[in-house]
Amino acid sequence: MTSGKTIKAGIVGGTGYTGVELMRLLLRHPWVEISCVTSRTDAGIAISSVYPHLTGLLDLQFIEPDIACLGECDVVFFATPHGIALNMSSALLEKGARVIDLSPDFRLKDTVVWEQWYGQQHSQPELLKTAVYGLPEVNRDEISKASLVACPGCYPTAVQLGFLPLLEAGLVDSRQLIADVKSGVSGAGRKAAISGLMSEAGEGVKAYAASGHRHLPEIVAGLEAVTGRPIGLTFVPHLMPMIRGIHATLYAPLMQQTELEAVQAIYAKRYESELFVTVLPVGSHPDTQDVRMSNHCQIAIHQPQNKDVIVVLSVIDNLLKGAAGQALQNMNLMFGFDESTGLDAVACYP
Amino acid sequence: MTSGKTIKAGIVGGTGYTGVELMRLLLRHPWVEISCVTSRTDAGIAISSVYPHLTGLLDLQFIEPDIACLGECDVVFFATPHGIALNMSSALLEKGARVIDLSPDFRLKDTVVWEQWYGQQHSQPELLKTAVYGLPEVNRDEISKASLVACPGCYPTAVQLGFLPLLEAGLVDSRQLIADVKSGVSGAGRKAAISGLMSEAGEGVKAYAASGHRHLPEIVAGLEAVTGRPIGLTFVPHLMPMIRGIHATLYAPLMQQTELEAVQAIYAKRYESELFVTVLPVGSHPDTQDVRMSNHCQIAIHQPQNKDVIVVLSVIDNLLKGAAGQALQNMNLMFGFDESTGLDAVACYP
Amino acid sequence: MTSGKTIKAGIVGGTGYTGVELMRLLLRHPWVEISCVTSRTDAGIAISSVYPHLTGLLDLQFIEPDIACLGECDVVFFATPHGIALNMSSALLEKGARVIDLSPDFRLKDTVVWEQWYGQQHSQPELLKTAVYGLPEVNRDEISKASLVACPGCYPTAVQLGFLPLLEAGLVDSRQLIADVKSGVSGAGRKAAISGLMSEAGEGVKAYAASGHRHLPEIVAGLEAVTGRPIGLTFVPHLMPMIRGIHATLYAPLMQQTELEAVQAIYAKRYESELFVTVLPVGSHPDTQDVRMSNHCQIAIHQPQNKDVIVVLSVIDNLLKGAAGQALQNMNLMFGFDESTGLDAVACYP
Amino acid sequence: MTSGKTIKAGIVGGTGYTGVELMRLLLRHPWVEISCVTSRTDAGIAISSVYPHLTGLLDLQFIEPDIACLGECDVVFFATPHGIALNMSSALLEKGARVIDLSPDFRLKDTVVWEQWYGQQHSQPELLKTAVYGLPEVNRDEISKASLVACPGCYPTAVQLGFLPLLEAGLVDSRQLIADVKSGVSGAGRKAAISGLMSEAGEGVKAYAASGHRHLPEIVAGLEAVTGRPIGLTFVPHLMPMIRGIHATLYAPLMQQTELEAVQAIYAKRYESELFVTVLPVGSHPDTQDVRMSNHCQIAIHQPQNKDVIVVLSVIDNLLKGAAGQALQNMNLMFGFDESTGLDAVACYP
Repeated sequence: MTSGKTIKAGIVGGTGYTGVELMRLLLRHPWVEISCVTSRTDAGIAISSVYPHLTGLLDLQFIEPDIACLGECDVVFFATPHGIALNMSSALLEKGARVIDLSPDFRLKDTVVWEQWYGQQHSQPELLKTAVYGLPEVNRDEISKASLVACPGCYPTAVQLGFLPLLEAGLVDSRQLIADVKSGVSGAGRKAAISGLMSEAGEGVKAYAASGHRHLPEIVAGLEAVTGRPIGLTFVPHLMPMIRGIHATLYAPLMQQTELEAVQAIYAKRYESELFVTVLPVGSHPDTQDVRMSNHCQIAIHQPQNKDVIVVLSVIDNLLKGAAGQALQNMNLMFGFDESTGLDAVACYP
Repeated sequence: MTSGKTIKAGIVGGTGYTGVELMRLLLRHPWVEISCVTSRTDAGIAISSVYPHLTGLLDLQFIEPDIACLGECDVVFFATPHGIALNMSSALLEKGARVIDLSPDFRLKDTVVWEQWYGQQHSQPELLKTAVYGLPEVNRDEISKASLVACPGCYPTAVQLGFLPLLEAGLVDSRQLIADVKSGVSGAGRKAAISGLMSEAGEGVKAYAASGHRHLPEIVAGLEAVTGRPIGLTFVPHLMPMIRGIHATLYAPLMQQTELEAVQAIYAKRYESELFVTVLPVGSHPDTQDVRMSNHCQIAIHQPQNKDVIVVLSVIDNLLKGAAGQALQNMNLMFGFDESTGLDAVACYP
Repeated sequence: MTSGKTIKAGIVGGTGYTGVELMRLLLRHPWVEISCVTSRTDAGIAISSVYPHLTGLLDLQFIEPDIACLGECDVVFFATPHGIALNMSSALLEKGARVIDLSPDFRLKDTVVWEQWYGQQHSQPELLKTAVYGLPEVNRDEISKASLVACPGCYPTAVQLGFLPLLEAGLVDSRQLIADVKSGVSGAGRKAAISGLMSEAGEGVKAYAASGHRHLPEIVAGLEAVTGRPIGLTFVPHLMPMIRGIHATLYAPLMQQTELEAVQAIYAKRYESELFVTVLPVGSHPDTQDVRMSNHCQIAIHQPQNKDVIVVLSVIDNLLKGAAGQALQNMNLMFGFDESTGLDAVACYP
Repeated sequence: MTSGKTIKAGIVGGTGYTGVELMRLLLRHPWVEISCVTSRTDAGIAISSVYPHLTGLLDLQFIEPDIACLGECDVVFFATPHGIALNMSSALLEKGARVIDLSPDFRLKDTVVWEQWYGQQHSQPELLKTAVYGLPEVNRDEISKASLVACPGCYPTAVQLGFLPLLEAGLVDSRQLIADVKSGVSGAGRKAAISGLMSEAGEGVKAYAASGHRHLPEIVAGLEAVTGRPIGLTFVPHLMPMIRGIHATLYAPLMQQTELEAVQAIYAKRYESELFVTVLPVGSHPDTQDVRMSNHCQIAIHQPQNKDVIVVLSVIDNLLKGAAGQALQNMNLMFGFDESTGLDAVACYP
């Protein structure tokens, strides 16, 4: 628990789904006041006229991105496409704001890899050195001391939390991993595109970016950083006809005969003190519906026919533990609040 | 804000959607402890094994309905089909528990009408006299003093909140009302039935009970009680391919020429101090998505082509303002808590 | 049944949902060959690369709208926004093609009303005189002789087929009609718009254009033309979280006491020889799912509590009987084919 | 094309989704007459009262399963749970009917394996010897001569068609295959079960039977029969929030360096003469929506980052190519009809 000190928060990119989810969460955080929310497209418009569900709850207008106003915040969240936080973070940090970046700008330490996947130069290699990868289950201490946190992508969160105990324990061949991951359509963001229309996405399932997705190098880098092993990963994302949720189905070949109970015990121990990761009993099949609107990750482990492949099932809400929720968790750590403050919502079933 | 006095709550009928929604809400209410949750079908089973989203949050088993245990509660919620609260309430009230009934057992004062629609005898006419109809926007004071509250049905909540200002002001012909109402499938409850399968309900819209639905007499009685006018209502409920939400489209013929702005002003004034009813600006079209997972009702008024029919659009989440949320709102009133305690969740968009 | 004479068909506006639905239907029509499909945005691109479900079935590219090519067709369909058929029809008719317009350009005989709702001048009043409103259940003979057919809108089809028998029989007050209509999202077309995203429309219901929708004057004109009575109609369209289907719920006050059986008999008789209109037994609730992917309209009649309001439930597939299917039905009539040729698909359930 | 000889068809188990899909298809097959449809639960009831979309199209009642009536059919389809065709087929075959079994009773040649997975004795080992596995792309000739055909399961169809060319060519390690498969909810059948409710399945994704599903031994047996290689397969099925469709994502490690173009060429050649299998261009991502309501399988091949894992994406409609459509395709082969008769429906998009 913490003191009643209230901090000021700014949000850059308030018209996307992660931006509005941040607003929803921050509105109910007892120690945060939302100071400014920027939007290039909607500057000057009342937030509640774009988002009627905030009517009566948030009486602000969107403003143009503005270092002066943002710089007076204690914390600034970037809920933007890549390239924005890259350019603005330095000035904000100089003004004393801490930055929590939900975009991919500071996730990869290797600028060569970053530039290859994002198609532009990484102009802030110095900042990269101080940026902390914001997966609390891995980097809790560093996050609590950081001034710049790079929040993981939604897929990388579900996949890393699922694979980590197996890889840390050295049980599986890290060069032959497969992550078959299913996402709800909100992961594609709030942008006008035919492919996201309900008529297109409402009754069909398809893979996309099967030959290479930007979250692949992030997952590989994250797993290599923790385990020190070379990671070989095949990662295929899929679009599901639902709004929220990510279901990662992970496959890893055992390197030696191992009982499922032993694997289960490793997972249970790894996450026993984690508030937001639940290891379900053997034989369980987590449902994305059971973490919807919550910051939880639920994980179950299977060993089909007691053979040599471990199957890990890992589910999150892509907008919470996969984005805005994890950002808030990081903020709580950075400002010394209780880690779950403002994040205690029970998943909304049905 | 209120004192830290904690009360004990029991839930009868914990395996349905309103029961589990009550658990979700009560778990986050600062002054309530869930003492017991009953279920005939699942007695003896851990709640979290039926509802995995509560894993780690609620460490209780379902028990058989048991007056002894329930009687020690300060408040008992009935989230049951009709006929259960009817039989059990009396004993619980005698033991000093207050009863909040989400079933229809005490909604109608007229036992003849009740018996006609529910096909069984109403065995508790005496209790009916003390029961208060739990629509806070109408009966706030009586609710705060009540020991037995009958929570309105989901349709009646959306329809009454939509019609009330118009009828109270005497602007429309109360004998020619039409309520065309659309509900998500969770309104049909959590019971194994082919008609509720996603394959049956997932891509189709249909009306049901068009010739007569049990919520009709409740709406009529509620509107007559408030307005003192004879109500003639045609009410047609429809099933929508979504999980949560009710959208009531209400039609009423004006009795004299009236400007839309005047009607809008009447609505704004009627609900200006209501925490959970929002009147949207003229020209708005409320979306059930904007009240999903919240206890809010959003209302907008139209006057097509400036003619003589007023159209009111009223949306709620059927499991919250239409059931468990309203029950909690009533509990807050009954126990002197702040009315919105535990109900401040922002609607979950998208 | 008819001879094996094959006709050539052109489609203007092939990238929308009605355009692609026309292709699907025409591909399986035994006497039609698709000659050209135009698209300004996709000209030069293989149709199957935009619509992979046509891979191997239709080996054409989209072309620019071109009077020369289209003029060689026996029939040209317009699956376009308003204003296109208006400009191109005259030239095509001169070249001997017959025109079936799925857009609203020739639906209203009154150019003043048309100009008021569509915000542009109606440049072809002469063509309007020869255009036939393509509702076969009303204008079958005129359609069969027409060179220019204006297909009804999706809402007007469901609403008119539902109201017609009641109005023709003079049973209800034609000045107090209410049509509460629910549509799947494909009705909004295949255009990039945030409001059509699955994240926006997938789990919510809302009304739109409650104060006035372009299909209102069309319905009024259609019903007035048939019945000769003044029509007073309140029409509120709603968007449903499903892809296909329209459900019209129609309310009309009886002018004199009438038994439901009598009304049912009137409907049964009115449609007894209609291939594509089915009157369901008393007490039925038609489901849009039961007409999905078929050209059928299903209708049921209710009289709640045996009182003075008749409720008609009318369902169609908005892309079939509400658009492309009806267009094909009209084409069959115009060219002397059996009316149901190419339209015998059974509804796809589940 | 074929002669106009009409055959009589019977369906055992008409109240499930595959049964009703068979009716839909057979109603439009020019050479088939539906003679009788059995249902234990609905015997004596008009089919159209259970399935309103067949109103006016099929004027039959469900009957009790009856060898006399069924035995007069030329072909009898079993759309039943396991164990029914097992008991009834022998008598029907003796009477001269040909049997097309959509249940799993005759899919596995090895009775020991069958009994292990289905938990009952296989009483017809003799029939098993004559039964032909009904995957036309593998067994076309045998099917055309068969009197008893065992139609593959839905998952096995999608998975085998996806893996076959790769395994036949010997390019991958057949002992390290992974099939991550996603199914619509209609695959669970038309039975009252809470897990199939839209409230439960409408906005969530989950795996099921991750430790072992009955389709696993069928896929393994099928692939071993064709390739003669030992198959090691990890198969995890998932439930998607949509009604129809299967998306198989298949992973196989290359045994030697191979270019994607070479793999693509192998697939193109393997299926070049197949009517119902389409190999999409390199880089494609097939969408279940593009085969919905059609008998097609669409396949695309990927080689992520040009490394050593081939990813095959294979989609079908589970009720068509995965069940009733494939059964009809088999019937066409068995009776000398054109293979695509009654199966030429274009996929229904959107």
